[in-house]
Amino acid sequence: MSNVAETGRRRSRGGGGAARRAERTAISVETAKYIERNIPNFEVLNEEALEIIEANAETVLAEIGVNFVDNPAALDRWREAGADIDGERVRIPRGLARQLCQTAPSQFTQHARNPERSVEIGGKNLVLAPVYGPPFVRDAQGGRRYATMADFEKFVKLGYMSKWLHHSGGTVCEPTDVPVNKRHLDMLYAHMSLSDKPYMGSVTEPSRARDSIEMSDILFGGLNDRTVMTSLININSPLTFDGIMMGALEEFAAANQASIISPFIVGGAMAPVSVAGTLTQVLAEVMAGVAYSQLIRPGAPVIFGAFVTSIDMNSGAPTFGTPEAAHITYGAGQLARRLGLPYRSAGSFCGSKLPDAQAAYETANSLNVGLLSGVNFMLHSCGWLEGGLVASFEKFVMDADQLGTLHHIARGVAVDENAQAMDALREVGPGGHFLGCAHTHANFKDAFWRSEMLDYKPFETWFEEGARDTEALASARVEKLIAAYQQPHLDPSIDACLKEYVAKRKEGMPDAFI
Amino acid sequence: MSNVAETGRRRSRGGGGAARRAERTAISVETAKYIERNIPNFEVLNEEALEIIEANAETVLAEIGVNFVDNPAALDRWREAGADIDGERVRIPRGLARQLCQTAPSQFTQHARNPERSVEIGGKNLVLAPVYGPPFVRDAQGGRRYATMADFEKFVKLGYMSKWLHHSGGTVCEPTDVPVNKRHLDMLYAHMSLSDKPYMGSVTEPSRARDSIEMSDILFGGLNDRTVMTSLININSPLTFDGIMMGALEEFAAANQASIISPFIVGGAMAPVSVAGTLTQVLAEVMAGVAYSQLIRPGAPVIFGAFVTSIDMNSGAPTFGTPEAAHITYGAGQLARRLGLPYRSAGSFCGSKLPDAQAAYETANSLNVGLLSGVNFMLHSCGWLEGGLVASFEKFVMDADQLGTLHHIARGVAVDENAQAMDALREVGPGGHFLGCAHTHANFKDAFWRSEMLDYKPFETWFEEGARDTEALASARVEKLIAAYQQPHLDPSIDACLKEYVAKRKEGMPDAFI
Repeated sequence: MSNVAETGRRRSRGGGGAARRAERTAISVETAKYIERNIPNFEVLNEEALEIIEANAETVLAEIGVNFVDNPAALDRWREAGADIDGERVRIPRGLARQLCQTAPSQFTQHARNPERSVEIGGKNLVLAPVYGPPFVRDAQGGRRYATMADFEKFVKLGYMSKWLHHSGGTVCEPTDVPVNKRHLDMLYAHMSLSDKPYMGSVTEPSRARDSIEMSDILFGGLNDRTVMTSLININSPLTFDGIMMGALEEFAAANQASIISPFIVGGAMAPVSVAGTLTQVLAEVMAGVAYSQLIRPGAPVIFGAFVTSIDMNSGAPTFGTPEAAHITYGAGQLARRLGLPYRSAGSFCGSKLPDAQAAYETANSLNVGLLSGVNFMLHSCGWLEGGLVASFEKFVMDADQLGTLHHIARGVAVDENAQAMDALREVGPGGHFLGCAHTHANFKDAFWRSEMLDYKPFETWFEEGARDTEALASARVEKLIAAYQQPHLDPSIDACLKEYVAKRKEGMPDAFI
Repeated sequence: MSNVAETGRRRSRGGGGAARRAERTAISVETAKYIERNIPNFEVLNEEALEIIEANAETVLAEIGVNFVDNPAALDRWREAGADIDGERVRIPRGLARQLCQTAPSQFTQHARNPERSVEIGGKNLVLAPVYGPPFVRDAQGGRRYATMADFEKFVKLGYMSKWLHHSGGTVCEPTDVPVNKRHLDMLYAHMSLSDKPYMGSVTEPSRARDSIEMSDILFGGLNDRTVMTSLININSPLTFDGIMMGALEEFAAANQASIISPFIVGGAMAPVSVAGTLTQVLAEVMAGVAYSQLIRPGAPVIFGAFVTSIDMNSGAPTFGTPEAAHITYGAGQLARRLGLPYRSAGSFCGSKLPDAQAAYETANSLNVGLLSGVNFMLHSCGWLEGGLVASFEKFVMDADQLGTLHHIARGVAVDENAQAMDALREVGPGGHFLGCAHTHANFKDAFWRSEMLDYKPFETWFEEGARDTEALASARVEKLIAAYQQPHLDPSIDACLKEYVAKRKEGMPDAFI
């Protein structure tokens, strides 16, 4: 029935006391295989709407154009490709961007150092990665505070221990206690050593992208053109590609590393206040960015990104899990598929300050839309709080648990003879019950998704155990997962080389905090 | 752009101080029109799966059959219609039930005493009604306690004040301080006098169904076959129709009042542990029930119901917002449409004891599935807590607010010239922003859905105002709505007749508490 085989049960490193203690804990350290959808996509745009938006996006590129700033080489590449260059403005003749996009693969493998954790990005697949970018963290004990490297490492461990998370992510929080120009080295080393799931590279400077590639080369014992990173290249919407981000994209594309090319839009501010207008801009921006990646290296793996929130017109605050975000996410998925590109959108988005009901409504709205819109890579799939300013430890495990529901919905509905259950219906008959019947005994273990942290207890038991809300249950789960964490094996010589690389790069580099 | 016109702004009853005070409060007392979907349905079953399930349901009816218990007249009706009767077992030849279902209307009007609040049930429409049946209530002040008539009235007032709720519902909680045999009279009177939205009738005894019809006849000044109630007729799954529920159905059908014919299934206990098996049973049960309603009166309005939760196989507790419930809800929608019947399913389902993150994840999962599965009548759309044991005041207003997102998603995506926003894209260009442009000014008011109770404030403001979570914000909203409530006008002579009817029926009736 299931095509979501669980793979990669972690082997313990030895037969000692630690291993036996690990055996005794009830914590699962499996990682589910990335989701392979056996359900259709939900399509909100009809053919006419799609054609209007695609034609308008070509008009935007040809008549308005995009800016490639602080990047004379990019202007030269565009000129050579046939675009019209006016200062930093690049006007792309109708059809050219779409044509250039054709060399980008519709699906690619991102290799993990543990081959069982490698992921296929594109097609009917969905790969889930954690929150990215918050400068703050929150937990029930310490409240809201600036993130540190210790917090970062704790999140990487939680990600490693989360069954439904396929990817270790990138900047799960900003380690603000490490200088800006050095923290990427520590973050990369944490992903490489504390987890064996795939990870993202650094994009905040071309040199940091190069560090990401070189450290990956060490970790994998030579990359040989294998794609081992998927990194986040934001577009400065509207219609602007800055030199630093493009510099990182150039590094990654040249090394055959994947980039998510992603408009960053608060609707009404960085894009028109209408869904169709926003989709037009998103498509134009992504086509320009993907086309540019193919000018660097035809065939370089890229993802059609769409990070879109709407704005609260009363307060100016970005809002999440909204109907308009749903429309854009569904629509952008259709546009991405027509362009033949893997698609990134949705996540555990919410505006709430706490991991409370608001956070969960908004997050569930977005996660469900993400599944049905055909997203292939979902960044921020767990842990996001307060509009992305905060990475929450409790919300991380709450969301990570909910990601299990997406896996089970994606299975679709089996209708083989066992699933038809006619024997059970005959055996039980009117007025009976199914708990004891043979079909139930044979199938109950795998039949229903079960949360590993929500409360299913009788009221009285729940009350006697302290009447805990979801945040309190999540807090206990964070501690339980961290206590059960064991570092996956890493070849000591590779570990030493990585440490040496980091130390050497930091050497003599003056600390920078902006 | 919107086909969700807001109608029915309540007029105040006079020009006095109360009216002016009402004007000054910021509370909206609009009611949105029922949802008219401008989006496709999500279909999880392919043609082959649908045909297998439909064929199996016919086999269930023909070979296993259903029980009509304590109801000799029903057995006679079935015999006359061509079924095979063996004791209380009714075996229905292949095709007969489906054929009988054909006289049931695919869409019908449920009239409200305020004609602006009448609803169309069926087609692309979605009508939202509140929680039904909990013996307990909960609020932040008083915790969990047995429900009273005062609680019931408070819920009816909240429903009246809730913009996105189209229906006043039925037993929004069980008023346990009123004898069982009299409480339906008080509940009906509360819906009729405290709200002008459509409501449900009593089903716990055929005589109470008759009371519902007679009180409605008074309220509407003669029913003349108009449908003014939609009532909940549960099937005792598996495959059992009890005499009391069928007695109520008989009363309602004969009077052309609508019934939701609804299997009540905890998957794994009252139905097979598989989705396809459960759908087979649901379809067989609904076809038998709907066919029976048409034996009473061909053309009587009915709804294809599916109340389905899964079971936690570790604890035996029912679980909500699960992937399996999603599959069943999507699949049953397809089966209902193929049968040409309006469809009832989904709701604010959750197992949580508190209106916390768990409650909101589970509820949002179910609400979103309900919208996309083509539900036409959503009972329990707000206020449900703790597996339906508790009606929560805070969760009622939290959920009712979220129902706004369903309205806006259902609008679909406009692609007219204004929505295309090409002028805005040209005006702003690369690197600009859209907040000040003409298109934003012309469209921002209606562009984005906006919560009336969630927190969109900056962190500092939120913190200074007490760092309130969603439950605390909801608690404040409950008080605000109740303070702003004004009773809708009811003709004093009708009011007097209703009171007289209730008093007369109670007269000399000994109190019963079971």
